[in-house]
Amino acid sequence: MSRNILLLPGDGIGPEIVAEAEKVLASVNEKFSLGLSFDTALVGGAALDDSDSPLPDLTLDKARNADAILLGAVGGPKWDSLPMAKRPEKGLLGLRSNLELFANLRPAILYPQLASASSLKPEVVSGLDIMIVRELTGGIYFGQPRGVRELENGDRQGYNTYAYTESEIRRIGRVAFEAAQQRGKKLCSVDKANVLEVTVLWREIMEDLKREYPDVELSHMYVDNAAMQLVRAPKQFDVIVTGNMFGDILSDEAAMLTGSIGMLPSASLNSQKQGMYEPCHGSAPDIAGQGVANPLATILSAAMMLRYSLGEESAAEAIEAAVSKVLDQGLRTADIMSEGATRVSTREMGEAVLAAL
Amino acid sequence: MSRNILLLPGDGIGPEIVAEAEKVLASVNEKFSLGLSFDTALVGGAALDDSDSPLPDLTLDKARNADAILLGAVGGPKWDSLPMAKRPEKGLLGLRSNLELFANLRPAILYPQLASASSLKPEVVSGLDIMIVRELTGGIYFGQPRGVRELENGDRQGYNTYAYTESEIRRIGRVAFEAAQQRGKKLCSVDKANVLEVTVLWREIMEDLKREYPDVELSHMYVDNAAMQLVRAPKQFDVIVTGNMFGDILSDEAAMLTGSIGMLPSASLNSQKQGMYEPCHGSAPDIAGQGVANPLATILSAAMMLRYSLGEESAAEAIEAAVSKVLDQGLRTADIMSEGATRVSTREMGEAVLAAL
Ligand SMILES: CC(C)[C@H](C(=O)O)[C@@H](O)C(=O)O
Ligand SMILES: CC(C)[C@H](C(=O)O)[C@@H](O)C(=O)O
Repeated sequence: MSRNILLLPGDGIGPEIVAEAEKVLASVNEKFSLGLSFDTALVGGAALDDSDSPLPDLTLDKARNADAILLGAVGGPKWDSLPMAKRPEKGLLGLRSNLELFANLRPAILYPQLASASSLKPEVVSGLDIMIVRELTGGIYFGQPRGVRELENGDRQGYNTYAYTESEIRRIGRVAFEAAQQRGKKLCSVDKANVLEVTVLWREIMEDLKREYPDVELSHMYVDNAAMQLVRAPKQFDVIVTGNMFGDILSDEAAMLTGSIGMLPSASLNSQKQGMYEPCHGSAPDIAGQGVANPLATILSAAMMLRYSLGEESAAEAIEAAVSKVLDQGLRTADIMSEGATRVSTREMGEAVLAAL
Repeated sequence: MSRNILLLPGDGIGPEIVAEAEKVLASVNEKFSLGLSFDTALVGGAALDDSDSPLPDLTLDKARNADAILLGAVGGPKWDSLPMAKRPEKGLLGLRSNLELFANLRPAILYPQLASASSLKPEVVSGLDIMIVRELTGGIYFGQPRGVRELENGDRQGYNTYAYTESEIRRIGRVAFEAAQQRGKKLCSVDKANVLEVTVLWREIMEDLKREYPDVELSHMYVDNAAMQLVRAPKQFDVIVTGNMFGDILSDEAAMLTGSIGMLPSASLNSQKQGMYEPCHGSAPDIAGQGVANPLATILSAAMMLRYSLGEESAAEAIEAAVSKVLDQGLRTADIMSEGATRVSTREMGEAVLAAL
């Protein structure tokens, strides 16, 4: 049995961090006889520079045929003034929608070794472990109609459509209920049902699904309150489920509670458990090419890939244990550096994980 | 000269906190010979119970004729299962749109006396003073079309429309640039211009306005990053301007950074500077009627009213100084209570502010 892994380094620090994750994957591939083979393709700004499209056909073909994808990051100031259709982000959004990667899993975990990096008080965040389940192929990101038009009075109007169908809500709801079953059995669905009709339907379907998961305790929260509660008392949450836009905002807020966004992986899955895995952080153009980026979120994304798309739990755990070990050893890239620790480069961090494996 | 103030106590703790603010207003009215007269009306759940409408015609008439409005809060579980059109929130949204209160000013200020209430580390939030300018009568809150429909395949779909015209963006932009001019001269406009067309127009108009305010430094930030930066380093912000939905989320997040949302006032203004003033917190049905709610946010909202709608800066400052004094005296309602302080009731807090005036 051979499994194809597609590597999409992308832009900014993407190539540096994916290179380290690739070494780690190659190592567990051998150690656990996983039968993985690797391929690489262009996406985002790197693809635009090469071919004038942020998601070339070749890349999309390779992605469709891959068992799993590891992505670095896309975007940067170089491409910021291009029209919407020609932006690096469209490469990412195109992959999500073409592969129907509707379920985005974003853990926000505080590593005890890095507790001091958080801007929150230790007692508020110690032991933090939240899973955010974000719908990724619907909502206002993909809603039609959209654009900018001129009104009769000559005024221009920008417009987007925020829509969800019952079946879209149901399938992301199931993923979230199942995640809650495997964790603390508490699910909080976030909406704005006091104002937006689309989220009235969202809330109704979540309530309906509840009957299929009697062991999960379901609650509902308005998005403004959720943004507040994440700051006030984040440990009240176990699993949070929400739509694409609210999920974009809340998952970044939750990630930053840990103070170490350079540590957080994510998974985007379709219904065949084919998945794209990427760090939560972006392409960080300001530090690209300097060899100082933190590769751990990407390495942990590779671990998530082994767990969710390839069913290789032991290999995933081995990587996670190795990451924990290098943190115990006091090794830190610049973003998580603290007094008394040893500062290492991107490559040194990758090598340390390899050694710890 | 006589000025009409309309009091809208609303639901939950609304009547208790508005009663204290009314006493404070009556006191400065006399002391500063302001010529204020007061009237009261029903809104939200209280109005629904009385007349089957969350915004009765009589209330709207009185609101139109008032020079300024002081609102407590609306909503509660009692009315949560009513259809959208019959919800207390529609009373609030109806007032905003009928009076064209498009400019919502929400300060997030950390009172030094309450620094320990924050869930963030003291060095991250000490001296925090952000002003969020939220557009309040447009965007997805009011966009048409909206609703729930059945698609051809039988699947139901909920939908809302996120739209802004150039002139709507321009008028809120001006309010924000002017606020920045009177403060630290830094304005951050928050959008999602890498995904949503409506916010591409938003960004374009903000850039265009910049030329009229050369003394203000304008920056742009994606909403997910803003949610993150508020947690990581909130003091980087001076004035933030954003649309209705993003503003709802970010202003609540920013308010909670202080740990004392019971202290934060807000103003909603139209182009004639007529305004509605209300605390940032909600109706808190769980503690309603117990006399324990914090009236200070409402009292500080009354101060904002004097400043922005009535041009009575000295009276506004007198109230703010009195509030600061009661905090110095160690008086605390339950929500901001800490060791060594003196716990007081809603009424006792109101009386203390009166005494300090
Ligand atoms: C780059 C951008 C289009 C993307 C999004 O908004 O989904 C990013 O913020 C993310 O969360 O993965
Ligand atoms: C009560 C609700 C409709 C309202 C809003 O979403 O605007 C509230 O959250 C606010 O921010 O004033």
